[in-house]
Amino acid sequence: MTDPFTTRLSTRSRGVTSSAIREILKVANRPDIISFAGGLPAPEYFPIEAMRAAADRVLTQRGRLALQYDATEGVGELREYIAAKVSADEPGAPVKPENVILTTGSQQALDLISKVLLDPGDLIATENPSYLGALQSFRLFQATYHPVAMDEEGAEPAALAEALARAPKFAYVLPTFQNPTGRTMGAERRKAVAELFTRYEVPLVEDDPYGAIYFDQPAGPSLRSLAPDLTLALGTFSKTLAPGLRLGWVVGPEAWVARLAQVKQAADLHTSTLSQHVALEVLKSNILDEHLSVLRGVYHERCQAMLEALAREFPKGSRWTVPAGGMFVWVELPGGVDVAPLLPRVVAEEKVAYVPGAPFHPNGGGANTMRLNFTHAPADVVRDGVARLGRALTRALATTAA
Amino acid sequence: MTDPFTTRLSTRSRGVTSSAIREILKVANRPDIISFAGGLPAPEYFPIEAMRAAADRVLTQRGRLALQYDATEGVGELREYIAAKVSADEPGAPVKPENVILTTGSQQALDLISKVLLDPGDLIATENPSYLGALQSFRLFQATYHPVAMDEEGAEPAALAEALARAPKFAYVLPTFQNPTGRTMGAERRKAVAELFTRYEVPLVEDDPYGAIYFDQPAGPSLRSLAPDLTLALGTFSKTLAPGLRLGWVVGPEAWVARLAQVKQAADLHTSTLSQHVALEVLKSNILDEHLSVLRGVYHERCQAMLEALAREFPKGSRWTVPAGGMFVWVELPGGVDVAPLLPRVVAEEKVAYVPGAPFHPNGGGANTMRLNFTHAPADVVRDGVARLGRALTRALATTAA
Repeated sequence: MTDPFTTRLSTRSRGVTSSAIREILKVANRPDIISFAGGLPAPEYFPIEAMRAAADRVLTQRGRLALQYDATEGVGELREYIAAKVSADEPGAPVKPENVILTTGSQQALDLISKVLLDPGDLIATENPSYLGALQSFRLFQATYHPVAMDEEGAEPAALAEALARAPKFAYVLPTFQNPTGRTMGAERRKAVAELFTRYEVPLVEDDPYGAIYFDQPAGPSLRSLAPDLTLALGTFSKTLAPGLRLGWVVGPEAWVARLAQVKQAADLHTSTLSQHVALEVLKSNILDEHLSVLRGVYHERCQAMLEALAREFPKGSRWTVPAGGMFVWVELPGGVDVAPLLPRVVAEEKVAYVPGAPFHPNGGGANTMRLNFTHAPADVVRDGVARLGRALTRALATTAA
Repeated sequence: MTDPFTTRLSTRSRGVTSSAIREILKVANRPDIISFAGGLPAPEYFPIEAMRAAADRVLTQRGRLALQYDATEGVGELREYIAAKVSADEPGAPVKPENVILTTGSQQALDLISKVLLDPGDLIATENPSYLGALQSFRLFQATYHPVAMDEEGAEPAALAEALARAPKFAYVLPTFQNPTGRTMGAERRKAVAELFTRYEVPLVEDDPYGAIYFDQPAGPSLRSLAPDLTLALGTFSKTLAPGLRLGWVVGPEAWVARLAQVKQAADLHTSTLSQHVALEVLKSNILDEHLSVLRGVYHERCQAMLEALAREFPKGSRWTVPAGGMFVWVELPGGVDVAPLLPRVVAEEKVAYVPGAPFHPNGGGANTMRLNFTHAPADVVRDGVARLGRALTRALATTAA
């Protein structure tokens, strides 16, 4: 522990602890374990043949471009595509390519925004609970949190107003099929929330990785379309095409996007041009609509299987969300049970894994909550896994009560 | 300027200025301009067909893996490949896969190391001059610099000892075909330098992007092989395969690499699995040795063309380095000429571009220096470009003298 590296760690780095949960969940990748833990899309539905054909065309027709250095902001034609798509989807708030920057997954957008805005101790408002990976990213830049209470439609306006009145550096909000809760703001809620941002003039980071994976109909208008001058909107191809591309983007005011580009240059120069060109080629082949329509059906079926199994198998008094899209169901268990210390035993005995909900709460709490992913395994495996998990939890609750 | 984003900029971000040079060099990408400014490999020598065939095999045989999320540290088989290659090249200091982490280009390694080690105001030792992109990365984390004087073999031991005696957080050194000077440490110099690190117990960041592109013979042993417990060694596929993959790596003590993985998770989760699998497949096809042998010949010829043209065309009193590999020649012009304000005129009038040397000097100086890249253009274009640049500089010097 006294080597010259360890004695030199930065203050920010000293705060990073190796997550016990992360270590356990590495075990959960074993093929004999049913894992509801990750946020993994169904690999059997990746558009692999379209990707293969796209890579072939890209490397045959413009290999020199697709393998060379390119602009930090991203491949020009892909910025144009995203700008056109966003403008078509949100005609009230059209954007130009200069409003778009490609990122190495949405995760990098969180890192870049942190770098541009956060000094140690700065306040951020987030939903409570919120996406763990975002909290880790902000925490590395020594943020502090004002957690905003949620109801079934996400952040409660009164609680949000209280947070924004404290003039945080920014608020981080997932309005659609939220991670981890699966909750979605309705149209009225979106309007109320956007008005609050306009009133308090606080920058809004709107993260929307799952919007395209709705079950019945798209969620309401993006918050960005309601407050375009205040919003950095994060998008990704991880859930619609494939996460392995590490391809996300940010749409926002031109000057803000230019600031992100300045720090992205120092972070990785630019995002993989091969990934960008392959994605662009797939998008131009017009398979995306049909692909998404298949994906929506499959994920809806798996979600239904999970919800029905939860009703059948989980201990009485458990409650869960009913998502209208996305990848996650959020479960609250009855009584004072703490699901984190249970995890190693459940993995070992029942060969099933979940993510304890506590780490999604920026300032603590939520020991009796867990996040379950329903997209990675087929419906029958989902049913089997929920049955095993239900058994384990029922036993644990009986022990707690005894 | 008073929007709620701009008023909230972090201290680190307020220090980032939009580079005037960067804006000029965007113009230099125009096809009618001969640019010696970038660090771009020759795209006509990218192993495009090998890449295409590799992408085809990867997506045919293991598309689900190559498109899915993967470990933050990198694809297991690629870590094994790099560990085996490093161990074979440096038998005195073998490494395991656990000593290797894949990064989104070497640039990301600089970002991750900065995050793990740097608090505002911390001291770093670097060669003077040093790689501009590294200085930008460190500066974003508010580093201060102890610049180490160089001779024809790179960092001078006496000057380096003085820097290390100040116990900097780390030293950043490019021992082989240095960026920007093209200089290389001989075997004796390497031993002396490694001994200094061992004596002062300062972590060493050894950056070696160009080592494989030697003209006659490989440079001496890596500094890592001489001080393995103190070194994070950065490598990249950008110059050997293609930069568009954004694929680099770090080799170092296991505990140090684990720290980098912790912060990489928050930075981008992991590097493009598609890029990693395609690179791995190309490496397994064993074309690399022959490819590098071709590349060495081509770059050597282009370098010779540049050196001969410099002797013919540049103003009397100019001096330049004679690199034994890599991508750059470093030029020092006579007298008090400042090449930065000259750049826009030279680009406009002579349609040729270079990078002024001043920004490569962490604490200022070097106004009469410039970096010239010789790898991107064919030899006859290199000759033409140097002739144009020589004309412009001769005129400028005449004006200065008058």
